[in-house]
Formats: sequence, C-alpha cells, structure tokens
Amino acid sequence: MTPRAAVVLTGTELVRGQRVDRNGPFLARELVALGVDPARLVIVGDGPADLEPAFRQALAADVAVFSGGLGPTHDDRTVELLAHVTGRRLHVDPTLAAEIEAVSRRISARFGRPYAEYATGIEKQATLPAGAVSLGLAGTAPGVLLEHDGRIAVALPGPPGELRRLWRIALETEPFRRLRARVRPPHARVLRVYGVTESAVARALDATGGESEGLDITICAHDFEVRVDLLAAPGAEERAAAVEASLADALATHVFARDGRPVEEIVLALARARGLRLAVAESCTGGLVAARMTSVAGSSDVFVGGVVAYSDELKRAPLGVPGDVLERHGAVSAEAAQAMAAAARERLGADGAVAVTGIAGPGGGTPEKPVGLVYIHAQLSDADESVALRIPGDRETVRGRATAAALHVLRRVLAPNSVERV
Amino acid sequence: MTPRAAVVLTGTELVRGQRVDRNGPFLARELVALGVDPARLVIVGDGPADLEPAFRQALAADVAVFSGGLGPTHDDRTVELLAHVTGRRLHVDPTLAAEIEAVSRRISARFGRPYAEYATGIEKQATLPAGAVSLGLAGTAPGVLLEHDGRIAVALPGPPGELRRLWRIALETEPFRRLRARVRPPHARVLRVYGVTESAVARALDATGGESEGLDITICAHDFEVRVDLLAAPGAEERAAAVEASLADALATHVFARDGRPVEEIVLALARARGLRLAVAESCTGGLVAARMTSVAGSSDVFVGGVVAYSDELKRAPLGVPGDVLERHGAVSAEAAQAMAAAARERLGADGAVAVTGIAGPGGGTPEKPVGLVYIHAQLSDADESVALRIPGDRETVRGRATAAALHVLRRVLAPNSVERV
Repeated sequence: MTPRAAVVLTGTELVRGQRVDRNGPFLARELVALGVDPARLVIVGDGPADLEPAFRQALAADVAVFSGGLGPTHDDRTVELLAHVTGRRLHVDPTLAAEIEAVSRRISARFGRPYAEYATGIEKQATLPAGAVSLGLAGTAPGVLLEHDGRIAVALPGPPGELRRLWRIALETEPFRRLRARVRPPHARVLRVYGVTESAVARALDATGGESEGLDITICAHDFEVRVDLLAAPGAEERAAAVEASLADALATHVFARDGRPVEEIVLALARARGLRLAVAESCTGGLVAARMTSVAGSSDVFVGGVVAYSDELKRAPLGVPGDVLERHGAVSAEAAQAMAAAARERLGADGAVAVTGIAGPGGGTPEKPVGLVYIHAQLSDADESVALRIPGDRETVRGRATAAALHVLRRVLAPNSVERV
Repeated sequence: MTPRAAVVLTGTELVRGQRVDRNGPFLARELVALGVDPARLVIVGDGPADLEPAFRQALAADVAVFSGGLGPTHDDRTVELLAHVTGRRLHVDPTLAAEIEAVSRRISARFGRPYAEYATGIEKQATLPAGAVSLGLAGTAPGVLLEHDGRIAVALPGPPGELRRLWRIALETEPFRRLRARVRPPHARVLRVYGVTESAVARALDATGGESEGLDITICAHDFEVRVDLLAAPGAEERAAAVEASLADALATHVFARDGRPVEEIVLALARARGLRLAVAESCTGGLVAARMTSVAGSSDVFVGGVVAYSDELKRAPLGVPGDVLERHGAVSAEAAQAMAAAARERLGADGAVAVTGIAGPGGGTPEKPVGLVYIHAQLSDADESVALRIPGDRETVRGRATAAALHVLRRVLAPNSVERV
C-alpha cells in the first residue's frame, strides 16, 4: 500500500485569501516524488477550534506535515496542538533553549532591539512534545518532528524558504529513512506539448489505452502548453513507457520537452548550443518576455536585452521601426512585429530576436483589431516565423499567453526539428 | 453569530501540486467581504474515498463551496457526491439537457469535431440532485446550487474565469439574498506601509492596544511592503478607526496606501495627475518593472516603455550610458543606475524614469559586489532619489524585491509627501 499524507497549512491570512499558500503545492510534489500519496491539503486559520480537528484528521495519515504556527506569539499553536492531539506532555528542551537564546542575542544586536523583546519567546519556542526532535531553527523557532503510532508528523515554519530548508533536514531523519526504505518512488515520466488543445491530447491518450492499474496519468493545460504526467507504480514502468511512446508519436512535432524545464530555459539552451545571442522587442507583453528570459540563472551569456516599446514613438525612435510600416499597417500588425524583430536584432546587436505586438485590453480594441489580437515574429539570420493569435480572456490572460507563445515561436525558429526522440 | 464557510477544491493535479489553486483564495476573500468566515480551504483529489469525507465535513458549514469536478467524464464526481451526502435523488433536468445539447452542437461545429463526442456527456451534465438549481453553463457543465438544512452548497467549475462568473450568479440567488440580509459585512480597513519591518509594524500595533473583541487584525509582509488588515465586526468600527489612526501616526511617512491598489497603479495615478510620462531602464530585474507598469489597464497614457539592458554593450549603445561611468564604477553601481535613469528619460522621451541595476545571483557576485546588491535611481526633472539595497535570498526573491523597491522609489520621487491623512 502506498503511504498517504495530509498537509495542514495554518494561518488566518491564508484561510482568508490575503496570502496565497505556496507551501502546499511544494510539499505535495515532494511527497509524490518520495512515493507518498498526498491525500489532502488543508488551509485553516490560527484559531484552536479550527486547528484541532484539522490536526486530529491529519495525524491519522501515515505522514502529516504542518506549516506555520511555530513562532513566539500566543497565536502560534502548532507545537501545543501536536502535544494535545497525540496525548504527549510538553517540556522545555534545555539544549534547544540555549540555541534559541544565542540566536536571539545575535538578532537583537543586529537590529539594535532590546534583548528582552526576544527573551519572552525563548521558553515557548524551546518547548517540545515528549519524544519530539528539533530539526533546527528557522529564525528563533525550531522545526519539529515526532513519530506517533508508527506515523510521522513534521511541523515546519511558514516562510517558504525556511520550510524548504527544514524539510530537507526532516527527510534525513531516522523516521523518514525508514519510510523511504519501505516505499518505492513512482517512476515518473512527463511529456510536454505546445500548439494542441487539452482535449486533443486527451483523445490521443485515450487512443493509447490511457490509464490502467498502477499507471496514473494527469493532463494539465496552461498558457497553450499541455503537460502530461505519467506516474507508474512498481511493475507498471513498461506500460508507462509504451503509453508515452505512442502519445509522443501521435503528438509528433507538438512535443517540445520530456522534462520540466520552462520553455525559456529550452530557448536559452538552444541558442547557447548554436552560439547565438538573443533580444526581444515587446509591446503588449510589456516586459514579460524579457522577464522570463532573465528569470533563468546564467541567461546573460545568451540574452542581451530588450526594448519595451509601449508607445508608437518608442517603436519608431530607439527601436527603429520604419514610420511607414506603422502608418500603413498600424502598430498591431504582422508587418510591425516583423519590423520590431528586425530592429531588435540590428539595434541591440543580437543574432536572433522575437517581437510581440497586440491588444491586451480591456480597452483599445476595434472591430478590425479586437482585444486579444496578437502578432509574433521570431527571426534569425537564416530562419523566421510569423504567428497571429486571437487570445480570449482578460488582460492578464492575454499577456501571459502571448508571452508563452512568443517564447515558443522563438524556440521553433531555433530548432525547427526539435522533436526529441528518446 | 458569523456564518462559517468551508471551501473544497477538487482535482488530482491540485492535490499533487502539479497545478496551484487560485480559486480558494478568491472564494475566501469573497466570503470575508460578504460577512462569512472562511473556516477551511481543503484541496482533495478526484477519488471518491477522499472526496466523500471532505464533502460531508464541508456540508456541515453554513456555506459550502466546491470547485471542479463538474465535467462530462467519470472523474467528475461533484454532483453525484452532493446528492449522495445530502441524501437526495439524482434526476435529469430536461431544460438543462436541451441547453447543454445546444451548446454542445455549437462547440462541435466550431471545432469541427463529431457531435457524438459531446452527446455522451449531455445526460451526465444535465443530472442534478433533487431541489438543486443550475447557475448556468461553463462550457457544457452547469454550476449548481442547493439548500440543505438551511445551509447553502454551491458547486462551481474549476477554471478560475468560469468560477468567478458563476459565483456572481450564485450571489444573486434567493438563498444567498437571504443570507446577505441576515449578515453584516465586516467593516474593513487596510493600511499599507513600505520601508519598515513586519516586527516594527507588530510593535506599533501592540502599542495601540492591538486586537480586541470584534476586531481582527492581520499583518502580512511581502516584497518590503507590510499590509495591515483590520476587520471590525458590527459595533467595533470606532475601535478599528482609532487603532488605524494611531497606527498611521506611528508609521507616519512609511504609510503609502489605505486601499488595496498595487504600487504600480499608485505610481501611474501620481504621474497621470501631474501629466508626466514615465520610462524604465532595467538590468537585474530584466523586464519585471516594465511588466508591472504595463499590467495596469490603461497604463499606455503614462508609461512610454523601457529598455532591458542585460549586457554592458546595451547599457552603452541604445540606452546611452556613458562608457566611462561603466568603466570607472562598474555596471552595478549607484552611478550606473543614475546614468541609466537619465538616459531612459532622454532617449525614451519620458519626464521621469527609474533604473535598476544589481546582481540577482546565484552567480556573478564578488566580495565587493555580492549577490543581492541592487542600486535603484528614480529621476524627474525636479527631484531624484538613489537607493542601495542588500537583498538576501534566491534569484527570484532578489528580482521580485528589487522590482517592488524600484516602484516604491519612483512613487516617493513622484509624491515626496504622499502620506495620506484620512
């Protein structure tokens, strides 16, 4: 039997929607990769009446992970509840108290705050349920792990960076080592396609026979990309490989990756392999294409930069789009996109460029050029591609999808025969 | 008593972390604004064994909202479970079936797919629990509302745009009208500050007396901004006003907004009021500042555009940063930031500009100029401000915080005495 996990994310600001939780999806992916099935992610506020049933239910799972509620204030109730629900006594751990005191003194000195402000929280934060162990400190609060009835409970801090750091430590503890020895991580495969609809992928999948015992398949569409995740339990690996191979055959040239790398990383790698430098020229995407290119560490060897030309004057002057192109065809036109790409290559000293111009809305649309109309042009010295799109949706959707499309058109120009055949 | 709500978000891709839920936070904010207290947001997969307890628990709340699981496939189990858990019979609604058939015929024609592909799902999607009403179609599936033991259950489609549309319709139904007649929405106040730490805000809040009966206060920090939300139950409005006023006094010039508008919207409004046009010049933020400026609908009357100068050549040539500035001080320097801002104003024909240069990491740092070092310069014809920051964290954090800081420095230059006094 695959062990099951429950994740409890605590915080009044989370349950009220004032902050969007990022820890649940991270922990879920980590658990899946371990071979543990995440059964439920629950977001609750800081009130004990809501926390207690959530804790009780979570502690019935093989693995229960909690985020938040570890700090020094009275609203931080995770440790107290863990003890209460597992029927354990609380005690102050003297080694942990000394550790927290040392950190508190350093913090009070660094921020020039009286040490007394921190001292009050030390005893609370050094308090653990009997049998629990500290995973190390995040700020002045420890992450906590305990085993209960053969089940594992892990309490982690709310800030995502700290949570991820202490989670890695939790994985190295004895209880997790034992868990990992008895479960086999699923065999995972991923197939990513661009330019076909989610339902077309679903039909292609049905034609391969689709899911079967031990083989879980999920299809997920986002910004024109469709991602197929295949998770095979031990014994179903060959079946997964066969389904993936038929699916890849059926979707042929639409397949662009068999791993999780974002398209901007693929674009940069393709250009790097050919020794090419890239630039962008953007209108309606307003910097999003450049932002995605530069989100990749080390992108500066390939990506030289870009121009966001939000006004017509800017398309003319620093970018150098000929005035008559703008006058004859308008700033939102295939011709303007092509001129912008050519100008970006020339003016910014790049070998290749992609340009995007369109109407993101909600205003600015006309019957001839409605909101959602987007022109993309990608250009190298020896290849180019023009694309016109009609993207339904609000401003954010149009901009997001136009950005994804621009990166994919640039990818196709860089690698016209890029179907990976494994 | 404030009515309480539970939200259940269904989808295997959500519980596995392959897709991040956006519906929970939206629904939570909507419920809070109505005067309903969101007790719990639960993410579960599509398996009936996980769905049933989640549905049962949610239906014990005054308002239960479900997202996802309304489509035509066997994995779409929301309606079936609603009927099962409330002990109602399922029946095919003939009017609804006719509606779904008409939509299915249009869709099959538009995509050139055989109608038979859609026909199989019509009966399933037209099936409702006894007493439930359709909220209208999203694609070919209806949103569903039912009242049970004086409680409201609403089932909405998973795609966020569709969910939001049908939620608005649900709010206009008779059961929600009755609910809204008996609850008073909380009196909400918000105070947003920039340039002080979350703990300094917490101390200032403590000094005002802080929370009290009927007055809920949450503090939330993100990208150097700290947001304080005050929610006052009926009777606690004056207390909320008093706490907010003392807090605003204590935080003085750090207060930048008393509403939820993002800083880019504030920047654009300030510039628009003065008839100024703005531009940006970015290095380490790589387009993110421009992307945030252009995320605001109608920004084109103020924002002319920007340059992402990721290479030194680009800072020199199209932007026009003097070569000797780069040679003497380096591309990551206060001098380079100032020259970039001046060049952006001049070359891009703007009245004001902000420039950002820094080291986003993880590579590229040196002992003198470590990762996280960021210089920002904002400039108008009659005012300017330079800021140097050391931002701890990964590449994404450095870029995100540098972007927020650039927008705030530009805001301060546009409105040096911008403390709103209400």
